[in-house]
Amino acid sequence: MSQATATLLISCPDQRGLVARIANFIDANGGNIVHADQHLDFEANRFLSRVEWQLDGFNLPRELIDPAFAAIARPLGATWQLHFSHPVPRIAIWVSKQDHCLLDLLWRHRAGELPAEIVAIVSNHPDLKPIADQFNIDYHHIAIAKDNKLEQEKAQLDLMAQYRVDLIVLAKYMQILSADHVNTFPPTINIHHSFLPAFPGAKPYHRAHKRGVKVIGATAHYVTADLDEGPIIEQDVSRVSHRDTVEDLIRKGKDLERIVLARAVRLHLQHRVLAYDNRTVVFA
Amino acid sequence: MSQATATLLISCPDQRGLVARIANFIDANGGNIVHADQHLDFEANRFLSRVEWQLDGFNLPRELIDPAFAAIARPLGATWQLHFSHPVPRIAIWVSKQDHCLLDLLWRHRAGELPAEIVAIVSNHPDLKPIADQFNIDYHHIAIAKDNKLEQEKAQLDLMAQYRVDLIVLAKYMQILSADHVNTFPPTINIHHSFLPAFPGAKPYHRAHKRGVKVIGATAHYVTADLDEGPIIEQDVSRVSHRDTVEDLIRKGKDLERIVLARAVRLHLQHRVLAYDNRTVVFA
Amino acid sequence: MSQATATLLISCPDQRGLVARIANFIDANGGNIVHADQHLDFEANRFLSRVEWQLDGFNLPRELIDPAFAAIARPLGATWQLHFSHPVPRIAIWVSKQDHCLLDLLWRHRAGELPAEIVAIVSNHPDLKPIADQFNIDYHHIAIAKDNKLEQEKAQLDLMAQYRVDLIVLAKYMQILSADHVNTFPPTINIHHSFLPAFPGAKPYHRAHKRGVKVIGATAHYVTADLDEGPIIEQDVSRVSHRDTVEDLIRKGKDLERIVLARAVRLHLQHRVLAYDNRTVVFA
Amino acid sequence: MSQATATLLISCPDQRGLVARIANFIDANGGNIVHADQHLDFEANRFLSRVEWQLDGFNLPRELIDPAFAAIARPLGATWQLHFSHPVPRIAIWVSKQDHCLLDLLWRHRAGELPAEIVAIVSNHPDLKPIADQFNIDYHHIAIAKDNKLEQEKAQLDLMAQYRVDLIVLAKYMQILSADHVNTFPPTINIHHSFLPAFPGAKPYHRAHKRGVKVIGATAHYVTADLDEGPIIEQDVSRVSHRDTVEDLIRKGKDLERIVLARAVRLHLQHRVLAYDNRTVVFA
Repeated sequence: MSQATATLLISCPDQRGLVARIANFIDANGGNIVHADQHLDFEANRFLSRVEWQLDGFNLPRELIDPAFAAIARPLGATWQLHFSHPVPRIAIWVSKQDHCLLDLLWRHRAGELPAEIVAIVSNHPDLKPIADQFNIDYHHIAIAKDNKLEQEKAQLDLMAQYRVDLIVLAKYMQILSADHVNTFPPTINIHHSFLPAFPGAKPYHRAHKRGVKVIGATAHYVTADLDEGPIIEQDVSRVSHRDTVEDLIRKGKDLERIVLARAVRLHLQHRVLAYDNRTVVFA
Repeated sequence: MSQATATLLISCPDQRGLVARIANFIDANGGNIVHADQHLDFEANRFLSRVEWQLDGFNLPRELIDPAFAAIARPLGATWQLHFSHPVPRIAIWVSKQDHCLLDLLWRHRAGELPAEIVAIVSNHPDLKPIADQFNIDYHHIAIAKDNKLEQEKAQLDLMAQYRVDLIVLAKYMQILSADHVNTFPPTINIHHSFLPAFPGAKPYHRAHKRGVKVIGATAHYVTADLDEGPIIEQDVSRVSHRDTVEDLIRKGKDLERIVLARAVRLHLQHRVLAYDNRTVVFA
Repeated sequence: MSQATATLLISCPDQRGLVARIANFIDANGGNIVHADQHLDFEANRFLSRVEWQLDGFNLPRELIDPAFAAIARPLGATWQLHFSHPVPRIAIWVSKQDHCLLDLLWRHRAGELPAEIVAIVSNHPDLKPIADQFNIDYHHIAIAKDNKLEQEKAQLDLMAQYRVDLIVLAKYMQILSADHVNTFPPTINIHHSFLPAFPGAKPYHRAHKRGVKVIGATAHYVTADLDEGPIIEQDVSRVSHRDTVEDLIRKGKDLERIVLARAVRLHLQHRVLAYDNRTVVFA
Repeated sequence: MSQATATLLISCPDQRGLVARIANFIDANGGNIVHADQHLDFEANRFLSRVEWQLDGFNLPRELIDPAFAAIARPLGATWQLHFSHPVPRIAIWVSKQDHCLLDLLWRHRAGELPAEIVAIVSNHPDLKPIADQFNIDYHHIAIAKDNKLEQEKAQLDLMAQYRVDLIVLAKYMQILSADHVNTFPPTINIHHSFLPAFPGAKPYHRAHKRGVKVIGATAHYVTADLDEGPIIEQDVSRVSHRDTVEDLIRKGKDLERIVLARAVRLHLQHRVLAYDNRTVVFA
């Protein structure tokens, strides 16, 4: 399936004939559908769909697909995204000092698991530069202090624009982004720990350990202005016991974080995630 | 979603325009699609799809849907099944002496989780009759011995025909069905233990325990002439350790068996399972 | 291992020689240890241990074991519990209207999985009486209204005393117990849903669904004055997706609840759970 | 717990007083036990135990511990291993062309998760030398062909002796070791795929995919003369569906393999695994 494909992610109020209308649009233009999935949110009366088709043999040139589809979609009150499998999206990875998520993403990228170009690594610390060097990726150290936060955020955003970044991955970037910042960003995926019950605030692993939880988790989500409360893309958990020290919990948490983040990034890069109403449909 | 729906499960060689053709058939007749999912098996060049739509507002009467769809499907070399959400399928549960899977199915049925009518319980032992009585379901004790196997199997099949059974669930029915038998049956779902590695033959839990496995599993599958080798519908596993005795393994295995079997039966009853080439697509 | 055993659960400040001292006490009196496990909480500098030995051949009569052990344990500043495998503990199950946890416990008890005597079912509703009848267990309907809560709680506690109950299992008992109540109770195990993030308050499954969580969970814990915040005994989770309706989440949640509650009750009945500092050590 | 400790792994026929005898030996010599766990295999009438104590304050010098313990253990018919937390074991990693398990082990080692010294990487291919260089570890390319297998195996063993290797980790080393080889080896841990049912022989992922399995797994085990049949240390699984291509299965399999292998190696390095009768007790 290495052939070039186009993917439409569509969301609109439900009504009769939507599947047929979308399929006909692709069929009428000579496209061969390789994946079609749809979901009805009955409560919200919302139709959500993902359709992927081969561009080989498709009669419309790339630049005309969006306007042509708009003629169908606008009357339906739809919002949609059109993506192409090539060129692959350009991603920037933001880190602080921890390397586990960064290294995992770099490996998977090298192993061909992530259809993307990693164009830059951004950090508020210099620590992980050697890893960037080793993988031949630009590393930008933008130190953030209390008194320069606004201007440094400006520098970060300029950098993202300069690199034409399509996706930011916060791979244990331990800074809170300002709301303004979030609104100007390209889509951004974050990873954070999750517990039953939740332990908001500082030192969550210490508190989860103190509480004797039997399960720890990690959640990957899109970043919104509401910290750690954006649409959830992927979650997973590990069992723990009283035998696990705080260090064990942190170690197991790191394993969860890197796997859950990598899965979420991959799903996004394959254009399988459709966010709406602070939740997601994952067409996996 | 308690409204009456129709569901098509379709399998045919892949070609351009299949999604559109099926969706148009339903749309043209006034049907509102509530679930549409499809899968391409690239290796086999096979298109597999499930479409479910509301019968309310659909212009074709039930008895004409199949012939009308045949006009579209035959030229495509398709095989298909048409199911209606009502009346619900009629199922018979076959058991031996163990009650855990039977009780679980009866409970779930009573809780509204299984859209079916349980019309009979069949057993080669009298042991579980009190449970059948308690749930007001006919219980048929058909003892099977070496010298009467063929004629008793005939009696079983007659019973299935008499009850107009749509699905047989082998809920720990510890007899091997003859190949002839299998061919005449309605679809039949079986549950059995699974291990890594496998322990075929007698006393698998004892041998898994002796081997010190760290994971045990259960597999629900359709019954084919090739014992325990039919298309897999659902599987799941549990972690075990050296602390688990053989009895613990059996106990945990029972929990797995009842949950995996119940899931598989539910998926089948919702017409979400499409078997082909000794494997399944589960549109879940 | 159906032989009668005694089990000690011990907690004391850590110091050299504890394992030897406890083992010697049992050995010197002719006991054969069948299970010995210990845990050091380094932060709290606390030693926690479970030792189980066969009573057959043990020289001390049952009633002298506790005073004899006290001579060793008191100087260590230890707290301890002494349990015998027979007679089995007497448990009362408290329910409201939902039957899934109750039925699961009754089944498992009948299947020999729960070493206990179920002496009574208590409910603030009459709905589940037929199940109690079917299993020949006393059913007490103690309706609780705003204006009679205190006196009805008194009635409940009198009932517990009358039945000489060793453990209360709240199997979806949807009433909050008053703090006074909790303090007078025998040990009490509760089951409740768990989510990442948490959704405290009403209709948690609806809110988790709305939030698009990918994992749901259940937590079994001891009841303390702080509602749903007592020491956690067992937790588990299930994956869910956007395809799951609220009803699906509730259905999967019920499966989790009954399994997690049953595991916690079994662990408690085997005297494998030692609670301290609002957490547990589970010697499993 | 960075303090130096000693660990005894003991196996002997069960008899009264074993826990006391071992604990007394340590206590009498001034040792503070930080972990003591034991297991009774009732069927085999075998007592298995792990005891770890702090060397600080212990009166016996290291070289006298083994002979001193022998005086207690020999009369019991025991076999035992004595390990020290420092110096850490020396391990060699054997690979072929796949890098996922190797890289994972190197990362975890760098992150402090594996208490060991990685002294050499051995391969029958030159491909992974750059990784070894990057981590500053000796890389030995020992090509194996049909006509030089015996002499190359000799070279491998000489190398292991030369490096004084305590543990060999086969991190996707795709060669079968000869039986002679196995007998002369230090303990060796292997990782391989696992399926329900099993797919022995070539291209297991292709065959599992063709069979439509819903779960894939990985098993880490000690290497014995009987290929892939040695004592199991750790296993885990992942869910898959018809949506997963063979490539997806292989990708998910790689994630499982690296995690399961890393866990097994860590457990071994912490002296938590006791193998007997082709099975293991994992004191985790």
